[in-house]
Amino acid sequence: MARCLPAAPAALLLSCFSLLLGLAAPAGAAAPKPGLLKEASQLRDRALADSDAWQHAWSLTTEVGPRPAGSAGDRAAVTWALTRLAEIGFDEIRPQPVEVSAWERGTAEARIIRPFPQPLVATALGRSVGTPEAGIEAPVVRFENLAALEAAKPEEVRGRIVFIDERMERERDGSGYGPAVQKRTRGPSVAAARGALALVIRSVGTSTHRFAHTGATRYEEGVRPIPAFAISNPDADLLTAQFAAGEEVELYLHSSARNLSPARSANVIADIRGAGKPDEIVIMGAHLDSWDLGTGAQDNATGVAILMETARFIAMMPRRPERTVRIVLYANEERGLDGSRSYTAAALQSEQRHVIGIEADGGAGLIYRFDSGVDEEAFPVIDAMREILAPLGIEGGDNSATGGADLSTLRAEGMPVLSLRHDASEYFDLHHTANDTLDKVDPEALKQAVAAYASVVWIAANVAGDFGATVPAGE
Amino acid sequence: MARCLPAAPAALLLSCFSLLLGLAAPAGAAAPKPGLLKEASQLRDRALADSDAWQHAWSLTTEVGPRPAGSAGDRAAVTWALTRLAEIGFDEIRPQPVEVSAWERGTAEARIIRPFPQPLVATALGRSVGTPEAGIEAPVVRFENLAALEAAKPEEVRGRIVFIDERMERERDGSGYGPAVQKRTRGPSVAAARGALALVIRSVGTSTHRFAHTGATRYEEGVRPIPAFAISNPDADLLTAQFAAGEEVELYLHSSARNLSPARSANVIADIRGAGKPDEIVIMGAHLDSWDLGTGAQDNATGVAILMETARFIAMMPRRPERTVRIVLYANEERGLDGSRSYTAAALQSEQRHVIGIEADGGAGLIYRFDSGVDEEAFPVIDAMREILAPLGIEGGDNSATGGADLSTLRAEGMPVLSLRHDASEYFDLHHTANDTLDKVDPEALKQAVAAYASVVWIAANVAGDFGATVPAGE
Repeated sequence: MARCLPAAPAALLLSCFSLLLGLAAPAGAAAPKPGLLKEASQLRDRALADSDAWQHAWSLTTEVGPRPAGSAGDRAAVTWALTRLAEIGFDEIRPQPVEVSAWERGTAEARIIRPFPQPLVATALGRSVGTPEAGIEAPVVRFENLAALEAAKPEEVRGRIVFIDERMERERDGSGYGPAVQKRTRGPSVAAARGALALVIRSVGTSTHRFAHTGATRYEEGVRPIPAFAISNPDADLLTAQFAAGEEVELYLHSSARNLSPARSANVIADIRGAGKPDEIVIMGAHLDSWDLGTGAQDNATGVAILMETARFIAMMPRRPERTVRIVLYANEERGLDGSRSYTAAALQSEQRHVIGIEADGGAGLIYRFDSGVDEEAFPVIDAMREILAPLGIEGGDNSATGGADLSTLRAEGMPVLSLRHDASEYFDLHHTANDTLDKVDPEALKQAVAAYASVVWIAANVAGDFGATVPAGE
Repeated sequence: MARCLPAAPAALLLSCFSLLLGLAAPAGAAAPKPGLLKEASQLRDRALADSDAWQHAWSLTTEVGPRPAGSAGDRAAVTWALTRLAEIGFDEIRPQPVEVSAWERGTAEARIIRPFPQPLVATALGRSVGTPEAGIEAPVVRFENLAALEAAKPEEVRGRIVFIDERMERERDGSGYGPAVQKRTRGPSVAAARGALALVIRSVGTSTHRFAHTGATRYEEGVRPIPAFAISNPDADLLTAQFAAGEEVELYLHSSARNLSPARSANVIADIRGAGKPDEIVIMGAHLDSWDLGTGAQDNATGVAILMETARFIAMMPRRPERTVRIVLYANEERGLDGSRSYTAAALQSEQRHVIGIEADGGAGLIYRFDSGVDEEAFPVIDAMREILAPLGIEGGDNSATGGADLSTLRAEGMPVLSLRHDASEYFDLHHTANDTLDKVDPEALKQAVAAYASVVWIAANVAGDFGATVPAGE
C-alpha cells in the first residue's frame, strides 16, 4: 500500500480506495509466466545486440529532414513512414487523415538599437503572429520571470516590449522544462493583457550556444495577439548586460510569422495483429512531425526510430503476440496535438480496446528509469518488467507516469501507461533548435532503448489480464 | 647548440652560424639581474591575484559587439579603445589612420533541392562575391579535400558547384587550422579555374554545432571570382549523407555579399614611455576588429583585454620600464592585415626601434607553452622568462615562434618575437562563428594570461641588450 500516497493520481487513488473498501476492482494482470519472461529477456538481449534504430533515424533526418505539420516535409514524412513501415513486417498499415493547424515561420529579426546596437539571434515562437511590416521599435522592460510580469502594473508594461529572462534548469528528468515553458505558452497573453507591444523570452532550453529555441505559444481568448520571440541564452545574457549601463534599452523586432488555414496531414498506424486477442491494443506512440529549425533528430526521429525498430524485433518473434501491438506515428504534436485528438476520438468509437500505452518522445539519452501509471493489481507485472529492465541499467521508478503528450488524450480517458525515462540532461541543449541534428545521437543508446521498449511491450502484449481501465472502457 | 636545428628559421640559423664561425653577432641580451626577476615575479603574482581582463572583454563585447573593419561597429570599437585606454595610465594614446578593405556580407542561403530538399546552415566566405539575384541552382561535385579538387579534370567540375568536405583536426596547438584553411583561401580560385559555378566548403572549425565558420578568402589574379560559402559540420554531414542515395545532388545557393570601396579605420596605439630608452619599443599587438557573426569574444576581445590589463599592471609598477611598452590594437586583421601593414610601413620610417614583440590572438584558453623567436645570444633571457612562467603551469617550448598574424609584417623585417601559446583545443569550436560570445570565456584563465604577459613583457622591457635584429635595424 506504500504506493497509495496523497500525490498518487486520481485513477490510482481510486484503485487504492477500492482495495481498502473491499470494492470490486478491474480484473488486474497476474504475474507473467516464466516462459513469457524468458521470451522477453531473449528479445531484450537480441535487440541490445542487433537492433539498429539509428538507421531509421538516419533515413528520416537525411531523406526527409524538417517536417512541421502541414508542410511539404510533413507530407514527405507520411509517405516515408508508410513506405518504411511496409518493410518491417506489420500485418496492417494505414494513414489516418488529420486536419492540422498550420503556421508559417517566415523570417525573424531582433536587434538592440539602444544603448549599444547589436544583432540578436532570435526566432518566432510557434503560432505567434508577425509584426507590422516596418517592425516594432520600442523600449524594453525586463522581468526576472513570468510571475514578476504577472505582478507588474500595466503602466510599467504598456507600449513596451516585454523581456522575460527566466532561465531553465538542467535536470536528468527534464523537469526544468515544465516551469520554464510557462513563459512561452502564457507569456504572450500575460504581456498583451498589460498592453505590451511584443514579447521576447530567454530561450526555454539549456544550451549555452547561440541557438534560439522555438515551441508553441497560444493566445488566450479575448487577448490581442502580440508578436513573440525567443532569443538564445547568450543573447539573453547580452541583452541583460546592456541594462547595466542604466540607460533605456530599445529593441527593433520584425517577424513575418503567420497562422494559415488548417492543412491535411495524417497519423500513420501500423499493427502487428494479436494472435489471441486481436482487439486488445498495446499502443506505442511517437510523433512524426518536427519543428522546422533542425532536422528533428531527437525530437522526434529517434522516438519514431526506436518504436519502428521495437516493432521490427517484435515482428521477428517466432510467434505473434496475444494482443495487437500498434505503432501510431502522430501528426502535429508540436503545434497542438491534432493527431492525438483525432486518434483518441476515433478510438473511443472503436470496437478495439486500448489496454496500455507507451510513448517515445524524450530524446535519445540512455534510459535510466521505468515508471508506470497502472492499477495496483497490475503491480506484479510491473515488478516483472523491472526485473527484465534491470540488466539494462534501468531502475524502477514509481506509479506516477502520465504517458506523454500524444498519449495524454487516451490517458485522460483512463488508459494505463508505461514510461521509459531517457536521461534528458543534455536533451534541452538541442530540443526545438536548429542544432537538433543526428550527429548528436549515440547509436548505442538507441540499442538500449529498443531492448527496453521491446521487452516491456512484449510482456504487456502477452500477459493475462488488464492494467486498469481500457479505452474505450471494457465490459 | 641543440636549438641550431635544420627546422630553425633563417634568422636563427644565421645566428647559429655566426656563433659557429666566430663572426660578430648582434649585441645579445645578458641574463636578467636578480632584482628584475624579483620584480617580474611580484608582478606575475599580483596580476594572477588581482587582474580583471574579463571586464575589458565584457565591455568590448557588450558595448561594441561585432566590429568588422569599416563598419559602424569598427568605428565604435576605435572610440571605445581610445576612451578605455585613457583610463589605464598610458603616457600617450593615438589613433593611426588605416585604409581598410571593406566587404558586406548581405544574406546567404543554401538549400539542397535534390534528392531530398533540406535547408543548410551556410555563410558567405569573407571577401567573396555574391550570386546572381536569382541564385545558382546546379549539381554538386564533392571532393574529399583541396588536393582532390586540384587533381580533378575540368570536365568533372565545369558547370557544377564544388563541395570540399575536408575536416579540420582538433589539436591543442591549433595546428589543424593551417592545413584546413587552405580550402577556404585557395579553394574558390582552384574551383573557378576549373569552371565551377560556386564553392561550398565544410566549415574550417571543429564545432559539432550548427554554426557556419566564416573567414577570408582571396581570388587569384586572372581567375573569375565565384561565390563561396561555408556550411556547418552537421550540414556537411547531411550533404554528404545525401550522396548515399547514388543520385545527383543539387543545391540552390544565394548570396548578396559584395566588396565595397575601401573604408577608414585606425590602429590604436598607446605607450608606457620607457624611462631609460624611450625609443626602444617592446610591442604588444592584438587586433581590434572582429568578424560580424559573433561578438568577437575570443577573436579577439580577450586578446585586446589581456593586453590592456597587462599594460594596466605595468603602468601600476612603482617605476617606469627602461624601454617603452607599447600596445597596438590593429585594424582589419581579419580581412587582410591592413592595420599591420600600415603600422609596419610607418615603423620602418621611425626613429624608434622595435626590439621585440608579442601578440595576443589565440583565444582565451589557458596558456600552456612559451616559445621564442630570438637570436641565440638572448637565450639566457628566455631561460629566465621560462622560470618566471613555470609556476603558472607554462612549459618552455622552442625558438620557432613566428609571432602572430599582425606581428608578421614586423617579423618579416627581422623583429624578434615571443609567443605565449593558449590551449586552442576548443578555440576552433567558436572562432569565426556566431557562437564566439563572452559566456564561453573563463575569467580565471584570463588572470593566468595577464600574469604571463605582464611578467614576460616586464623583463623584455628592462633587460640589458637586444634579442636580435630590431625594426628598423639598429646601429
